[in-house]
Amino acid sequence: MTDIAMIRAAAGRLDGHARRTPLLSSPFLDEIAGRRVFVKAECLQHTGSFKFRGAWSAVSAMEDDERTKGVIAFSSGNHAQGVALAAREHGAPAVIIMPEDAPRMKIENTRALGAEVVLYDRATEDRDEIGDRLSKERGLTLIKPFDEPLVVAGQGTTGLEIAEQAKAEGIDNADVIVCCGGGGLISGIALALDDTAPGLRARPAEPEGFDDVRRSLASGGIERNNSAFGSICDAILTPAPGKITFPIMQRLCGPGLVVTDDECLKAMALAFARLKIVLEPGGAAALAAALFHPDEIEGESVICVATGGNVDTKMFLSALTKFGPSQ
Amino acid sequence: MTDIAMIRAAAGRLDGHARRTPLLSSPFLDEIAGRRVFVKAECLQHTGSFKFRGAWSAVSAMEDDERTKGVIAFSSGNHAQGVALAAREHGAPAVIIMPEDAPRMKIENTRALGAEVVLYDRATEDRDEIGDRLSKERGLTLIKPFDEPLVVAGQGTTGLEIAEQAKAEGIDNADVIVCCGGGGLISGIALALDDTAPGLRARPAEPEGFDDVRRSLASGGIERNNSAFGSICDAILTPAPGKITFPIMQRLCGPGLVVTDDECLKAMALAFARLKIVLEPGGAAALAAALFHPDEIEGESVICVATGGNVDTKMFLSALTKFGPSQ
Repeated sequence: MTDIAMIRAAAGRLDGHARRTPLLSSPFLDEIAGRRVFVKAECLQHTGSFKFRGAWSAVSAMEDDERTKGVIAFSSGNHAQGVALAAREHGAPAVIIMPEDAPRMKIENTRALGAEVVLYDRATEDRDEIGDRLSKERGLTLIKPFDEPLVVAGQGTTGLEIAEQAKAEGIDNADVIVCCGGGGLISGIALALDDTAPGLRARPAEPEGFDDVRRSLASGGIERNNSAFGSICDAILTPAPGKITFPIMQRLCGPGLVVTDDECLKAMALAFARLKIVLEPGGAAALAAALFHPDEIEGESVICVATGGNVDTKMFLSALTKFGPSQ
Repeated sequence: MTDIAMIRAAAGRLDGHARRTPLLSSPFLDEIAGRRVFVKAECLQHTGSFKFRGAWSAVSAMEDDERTKGVIAFSSGNHAQGVALAAREHGAPAVIIMPEDAPRMKIENTRALGAEVVLYDRATEDRDEIGDRLSKERGLTLIKPFDEPLVVAGQGTTGLEIAEQAKAEGIDNADVIVCCGGGGLISGIALALDDTAPGLRARPAEPEGFDDVRRSLASGGIERNNSAFGSICDAILTPAPGKITFPIMQRLCGPGLVVTDDECLKAMALAFARLKIVLEPGGAAALAAALFHPDEIEGESVICVATGGNVDTKMFLSALTKFGPSQ
């Protein structure tokens, strides 16, 4: 199980490799939210999302002889790119299993980062079967996207940085809102804050209809989403909290927040105009909660984690067209 | 005249107020440029451009009794917002003289940052006359956009950060390309690098048809642009190098680079896709030079300063529509 010692060890391994992302702010966002808003810009992390931290943490902790054989991951998105780059920088082969209908650009990006991409047909093939076979044949190590202690430890390094950056801003008491899928990032952040900044409380933000973590925290047991798709927040549409992450969230996280797709698009347009960063819908959920659900938040300041910026051009154009500032 | 001691003093005054912006990179940009590309993301600075540094440097250096009377600036753009915020945070009144046909949003932003905006008619009124009158009536101090030693010193703090960040990346020899209008930023950076990282050489990037600095460096005397408009790079269409900045550039800067408007739009689209930052056309000129003029650059690495991100929605949409990655 991940603990603060593992997070600190991961921070040591990530030093000089992961980027220390800035904590951004704008008086214009403060005005909308009615309190000071700080945005931890993980979209500026290598590969455009926090996923690189967990991937690096896992790959860097492997024994040399295992790493030489290679790693494998299932992902059509941010985890794929994080694992591909972390593996390449360690000189380790990476196999990423992706659905053949994944966006062409994500497939190309993952390949361009040096990974071998194995495509499968969602309708006729079983990705787990393909993964098992390849892993056995080649001795590959599976890197799970969130339910893996080393990955949670890597994501937790975000929390160590937030604690330091909040202190530098004079914030010792605030909600820290985190865009939440399976809970790997928020679990790591919650563990880090619990140790280093106990006045900061991690809270998940999820899209409407996909609030499995909010409902699980409320009921005390693992609840699942009814659907696997139907929100633009593709990066955080995980079916249920993880087995490793849920107990951590249950122990340390505050109540969940729920945002609409349009609120995420609005937050993307405001992040464009006021912070000059690019967010994907799922990476804007925490900022959307901070801006548009102020009555559900406590304190004079709020910190949001902007988890990723891997958005396609069309989606970004639609955010700006619908909600971008006119001149 | 600005020197390294003034830049270090400005860095002390800016500490905890200006943002230390990250040095970003992407393997995808490296591939396009044929060398490692590092981007100093000053679009993430307060008010969305490096101008806040110079403004803070000037306002913070004023005597209390002068500052209490207030400051004045002429600008329709980034300098206006930088001065407005720096003044507000010092509790000083700010008057910004803007043309009445300036983009409505820039006027509103400047007002929202607490400044008194005085509009004038470009056709019938003389802005200098208005400025002189208000300055005399109220005892306001003029903050020039670039030809002012304290402003150059503030912009130079960008150079101190670049020197440190380059060292951390193992770069001791590289061109540092800077989007260039009147030369305040590049002069400050060149002075800082000369002292702290002499293997790094500042070079201006300008839009085609507005390469007054390139031509001035080549001829050895101040050359003017033939036109005041006709490029989308509005932030850097200054008519001629400054009287204070030109001798510094002449002594310390390498030859200028020239980019087209379309190259700036392409660089904006690539910065969106690969770095997850928002650039305005004039803020993308240095990156455009690094990506699309590789034969004019020396060394295994290149550093570009992305000077600002205050772009309107329509312009950004056009960059993405023309040059954004399709899925």
